[in-house]
Formats: sequence, structure tokens, C-alpha cells
Amino acid sequence: MGNALKLGIAGLGTVGLGTLKILLQNAEVISSRAGKPIVVTSVSAKNRDVDRGISLDSFEWFDDPCEMAASENIDLVVEVIGGEDGIAKKLCEVALKSGKHLVTANKALIAHHGDTLALHAKDTNKELSFEAAVAGSVPIIKILREGVVGSRIHKIFGILNGTCNYILTEMRDTGRSFDDVLNEAKELGYAENDPTLDINGTDAAHKLSILASLAFGTKLNFNAVKIEGISEIAALDIGFAKELGYGIKLLGVASFENGVMEQRVQPCMVLNKSPINKVEGAFNAVVINGEFFDSLFLEGRGAGAGPTASAVVSDIVDIARGRGAPPFGIEIDDLQETDILLQRELEGAYYVRLPVIDKPGVLAEIAAILRDKGVSIESVIQRGQTSNDIVNIVMTLHNTQEKLMCEALRGIENLSSVTEKAKVFRIENF
Amino acid sequence: MGNALKLGIAGLGTVGLGTLKILLQNAEVISSRAGKPIVVTSVSAKNRDVDRGISLDSFEWFDDPCEMAASENIDLVVEVIGGEDGIAKKLCEVALKSGKHLVTANKALIAHHGDTLALHAKDTNKELSFEAAVAGSVPIIKILREGVVGSRIHKIFGILNGTCNYILTEMRDTGRSFDDVLNEAKELGYAENDPTLDINGTDAAHKLSILASLAFGTKLNFNAVKIEGISEIAALDIGFAKELGYGIKLLGVASFENGVMEQRVQPCMVLNKSPINKVEGAFNAVVINGEFFDSLFLEGRGAGAGPTASAVVSDIVDIARGRGAPPFGIEIDDLQETDILLQRELEGAYYVRLPVIDKPGVLAEIAAILRDKGVSIESVIQRGQTSNDIVNIVMTLHNTQEKLMCEALRGIENLSSVTEKAKVFRIENF
Repeated sequence: MGNALKLGIAGLGTVGLGTLKILLQNAEVISSRAGKPIVVTSVSAKNRDVDRGISLDSFEWFDDPCEMAASENIDLVVEVIGGEDGIAKKLCEVALKSGKHLVTANKALIAHHGDTLALHAKDTNKELSFEAAVAGSVPIIKILREGVVGSRIHKIFGILNGTCNYILTEMRDTGRSFDDVLNEAKELGYAENDPTLDINGTDAAHKLSILASLAFGTKLNFNAVKIEGISEIAALDIGFAKELGYGIKLLGVASFENGVMEQRVQPCMVLNKSPINKVEGAFNAVVINGEFFDSLFLEGRGAGAGPTASAVVSDIVDIARGRGAPPFGIEIDDLQETDILLQRELEGAYYVRLPVIDKPGVLAEIAAILRDKGVSIESVIQRGQTSNDIVNIVMTLHNTQEKLMCEALRGIENLSSVTEKAKVFRIENF
Repeated sequence: MGNALKLGIAGLGTVGLGTLKILLQNAEVISSRAGKPIVVTSVSAKNRDVDRGISLDSFEWFDDPCEMAASENIDLVVEVIGGEDGIAKKLCEVALKSGKHLVTANKALIAHHGDTLALHAKDTNKELSFEAAVAGSVPIIKILREGVVGSRIHKIFGILNGTCNYILTEMRDTGRSFDDVLNEAKELGYAENDPTLDINGTDAAHKLSILASLAFGTKLNFNAVKIEGISEIAALDIGFAKELGYGIKLLGVASFENGVMEQRVQPCMVLNKSPINKVEGAFNAVVINGEFFDSLFLEGRGAGAGPTASAVVSDIVDIARGRGAPPFGIEIDDLQETDILLQRELEGAYYVRLPVIDKPGVLAEIAAILRDKGVSIESVIQRGQTSNDIVNIVMTLHNTQEKLMCEALRGIENLSSVTEKAKVFRIENF
């Protein structure tokens, strides 16, 4: 058995403590899988004196994680502080520049600075690994980097944020409103105290941009992700979706064809029977479509101490075994620049809900505007007069250019009988 | 970029040609992922003169694959001939002993001789890889070997034979008999001309024994797998299962607790809504349960040129990158001996169908015998008098020791009103 691999853990929150716990509890089995002992020598966190339910006496303590990252006594830094900039970024740079391997669970950091960090890793010939940054315990980074390498990947999509999926599952099952369910999710610990980055889609977009780069061999391009969150989803829409045979899921979708890349995070309607619609609660799932293997579906827990730390440990064991890879699958300089699909070129099927005044001729006016733009209606439901003579016209549209649909909707929203902006969801045939 | 990795392919059937095709068609993208060119220099098959739709002129031809495996001009042998013994085994031994890496898709060979081959690989410090041996394009070997290494695995189960899953899916959807669907499957190429090893469960058992060894760190023990095939499943039982809210799937199930291992391949009833029951046609799926990540579900195409060759190529790229691992995750000498769970210790819930003569008191007699053995009935259906006054009594039994149930059934089958042996399926709560 080889010499021990010496670790420093920066950050002792949920994931940091989870990692420490796994490494201590399963030290023997992990060392047999790693071919050498894995030993945590150093730790760093904001405050030493918090009661963490575990003694830190056997580890060297650092108030400053950058100092730890530079220290002589470690081979590998585990960064589980989080945040796209600030101390996390700084310590990661210090770690790689001073010749340490780096394992991080920080999706914001990788989405924004993964390319720079990969260059640092290349310079010192060390590993940069981030399995835990995307989809918790689902080994999607490894599968893209090492598992489907014979094929060109056409599309990758999935449920990448467990908080949103938990909220949408609860809304569907109980008929309650977004705000109501979100508040409960906070109380139960399924949502952070400040869940902004989760519910506005940013967190899923960070993850999607990382997956897209790995899948397609393209440069990271977080800024090109079209992002829409879940806070505007009404219980009403979930009800109509159900009636039409669909569920509403927050999906990240990336595709790549003829040098053109599309990346979007948005609530989508998916068929009830679709596997992706069966992914419940805090689970994550990813589907990869590629040329020779056709389709792979992967589902597992997307967050939490155990699942995320489990991914961190797999990265550590790979490094201990000497199983290296360029962080994004191919050399960082070989990642392709891509054209970005502009919104006006998007095509899809859509769900549209229009609150209108219940009087004769409204549907005729709406249908005429859609027809004039060449947008074809698949089905219409007109339902439930509420107070004030308002009814909802719900339509599903056949495959159409999003641009044409938006133009039609602008016209429709100008009708005097239409009382609010249209609520629109993309329908995915997954 | 490094020196080329030179390959010899032994066997030019579906998978061999598929591998050749991927390596030629995607040479550029594969070499960028592998960090070096991957070049097929040599091939071997039974007959050179078959029209394979591809020119073999640029490859050195060997009539004898063992001669190829020993030749100086290759670094890695791809064995895609098949069969647990004979020429496949011989050439694999020659390859490893003469210092070549070995990539094989041969589950029978690995299930029976994987330990011996791993020792040869260790002796010459070469890699032995077999991702393609289990579940086609689903990277289950890699995930067990490298992805869930922080956790002890409690259980692994799945649909490991696409032919059986295709047949059972068709039987469910059309109500047709096993023989009828099997004949059609042969015509359509979904079943081999001699499908014995598929339908009697042997093929799935080969794969299960490989997964169990990797998951639990235990010695391969194919002979301890309890095996039952699908040829005795009647359309009638699929119908009753449906009515009770279940599907019937051929599952491989392995578990490991307190040093005791259970391995079985058998048709099981699983809840309609269970993800494993949604796996249709020729797809394979595997579920891993372990301590820190809880549960991982993986689904993809389990057979065919593209999916299987895709797995072969991922092994080749790993070897090109120097990403090595002990074939069974830990050193071959460290794999644990296990106690085998004897059948009489098995516990589960069961479905039992008894054809009986339709006269008063039969159910009372049956229920009394079950009661006397302490076996508890969950539900009973008595249905459909056929000709000759025969009816089927269908029962689901609560969790019970299989041994007690079998004893009760022996007694029940001795009743004068019971006309045939009981048809029994295990009910899994997956």
C-alpha cells in the first residue's frame, strides 16, 4: 500500500463535516479502494469553537484557509466553503498554484472560474475535481468525462436543483401555493434561509453550464444560459398541467448541434409518464443523449451531507489511485467556442394560459392572432369562471418558433378582453 | 499528445465491428479524450472473407487470436468472442501474461474466471476491464469501482437481460404467451437463435455475480447464485399481477449484510409505480443502495452494437489515460470470502397461484395449512372458472420465511382439490 494522501478540508459546514465523517468512519474500506490511506491532517473554518459533535484535536487548525492551502503538510485541498468569489476562489487558486490537488463541491466557482482553475491545475500538473458540484451523489461528471467518451453527445437535461423539485412536488401533491410551500420547506430544512439562487434558477444554471462544457467539449459559458425560476408558477397552472397529462418540472436543458449550443433553465411541462416527471422531492436526475449509446438516465439524491460528501470522497479516491483526467474531459485549450442559439431561433411546443373577460368572441380574436402568425393550436380548455367574470383560456400549441409565439402573445395581450400577461410554459417531449 | 495506444480486436461480430466503427468514425474526439491516438493495428476472427461492410486491409490479420494476443505490435487486446471457456479464455490469458492490457465484454468468462485473470493482470501490472460485460452502455462497473467508494453497499439489483425484459414487456402489453413472443423476438433479432442462457437466467446471473463482487468487495461466486428463468411465466400470471397492481420483471438481486451474501436471479413482482417496473423493452437498469448516498438508479440500453461497443471504448480510453483500478475495485487478494444465504433463510412476500377444483371448502383447507405454518395471507382473488370446474386461487402473502411457505405449499399440493403445483413469484418492495 502506498504512502498516505494528506488532506486539508476548508469549510466545516454540512458537506465538510459529512466528508470528514465518511473518511473517519470508513477509513479501512476507503483505503483499500484508494490503494493507500487517506488522512485528514488539517482543517479550516470561520470559527473553531462551534460544537460540531466531533473533536478537531487531531487536526492542525487554520483560521486562514489560504494559509492551509499553501501549507507543506497536505497533498490535496477539499474546498467546501462555497460562493463564486471571495475566500473560496482565493484558496482554490493558492492550492493549485502551490501544487496541491483540489476537490471542490462549489458549482458557482466552477461555472464562473472553472477554466482559469483548470489552467492552474495544468500548470502544476495536479488534479481539479468537482463531482460534488453537480447532482450530489449522481456521478454525472465522471460519466461525462470517462463513461460516454466514444460518442458525440447531442443533448443533456435534467432536474438539477432539489429545493425546486421538492417545492414543485409538494405543490403538485397538495395544491398549495408557491409561497406556502417555500415557507414550509425552509422550516423543514429543504430550502436555505435565503433560497434566492435556488428558486430563481441560478444554481441549476451553474450546474448546467458545467455539464454542457463536459458533454460537448465546449468552453464554459454560464452567461449564455437562459434562466427562469419557479416563483411565478401558480397552483392553477399545476392543476391545468395535470389535467392535460403533464407535470411541471424545473429542467436544465443543453443541446449542441452544428456548432450551435443551447442552454436553458426553465419550468417545463413534461408528460406524466415520462421518467423525468417521476423524479420526486429532493432527488436529482440527468438524461444524456448521444450517438452510440442512445440514452442514459441517472437518478439519485442531489444534496445533503451524505450524498454530496460521498461525491467528494469519490474524487479523493480517484486522485489517490492516480486516476486523472483533464477537468473538462479534454485539454482546456481544446474546448470549443460555440455560437449561442438566440432566443428568436428557439423552437418548441408551449402551454399558454390567458386570463380573459368572459364574453362572446374572445377565443375567436385570440385564435385569429395566432393563425396570422402561423402558430397552430393543439388543444384548448376554457374553464372555471372566477369572480369578476374572468375565465382562463388554456391552450397547448404545436411546435412553433418561440419568436412567432411571442409576437402573437404581444398582440393578444393588447386585446381589451385580455386582463393579464400570458403565462407560458415550454412543453418538452422527454 | 502521447504515443498511440495500439489495439488488437479479437472477434468481429456485432460488438467487435461496432467497436471498430466507433474508433474509426470518432477517432479525433476520442483521441482528444484519451490524450493520445487510439489505433487498431490488428484484428482476428474465424473467417477473413466474410463481407463485413468495412475493409480490413489496413489491419494485420490473424487467424489465431492467441497469436495476435502475443504479438509485439499491440498494447491492448479487445476480446469480443464470448464464451466462458475455449478460445476466448485462452487468448485472454495469453494477452495478460504477455503484458497486454485486456478489455473484454465477456460476462461468462469474467463470472467464471475473473479472479484468475485479475491475478494475471496484477502479475504483469496491466489493466483488466469489462465495463461492456454488464448492462451495455450503463457504466455500472465504473460507478461501483470508482463512484460510490465512500460507502458500504448494502444491495444492488436490476434488470440485467434485455431479451427477457423485451419478452416480458411484450407479454404484458399484448397478453400473448411466452412461446409466441419468444418466436417473434427471434425473428426480430431481439433474441438469439439459441436464447437458452438468456431465458433461463444464466446470463443475468453471470452479470449479477460480477456486480456483487464489485459492490461488496467479495470473491466472485457465480455458483452461489440462485437462478430461475422466465420460461414458466404464464400470460395468466401477468394478468393477475396487473390486477394486483404489479408487473413481473426478471430481476437480479444481490445483498450483503453481516458477512452473509445473497444472490438471486428470478422473476419478481414489482409495484406498477416502481421505477424498475417502468424499464421497458431491451433497456437495462441497475439500482445501488448504500450508506451515504442512499440510492442510485441507472438506466440505459443493455445490448446491441452501439451501446456495448460504447462501453468497450470507454475502457480503452481509461487505459489510454492511465486511469487504472484493480479489476474488482480492491486488490484481488483482499476480496472477502462470504457465507452464502441458504434458501431456507430467505424471507419475502410472495404471490401464489393455485389451480383448484371449484367446490366448497377448498379455500378453507388452504388457509388452514398456511395458518398452521404461521404464513399470513394479505389478499385473495378467486377468479374465472375455466373448463373442468378448475378455478385459480391467487393469494399474496405477507413477509414470511420462504422455507415455511414451501412447507405449506407441499401440504397444499397434496390436497385432492389442488390440481397442479403452485405458481410462486416473489414480491419485491422496490
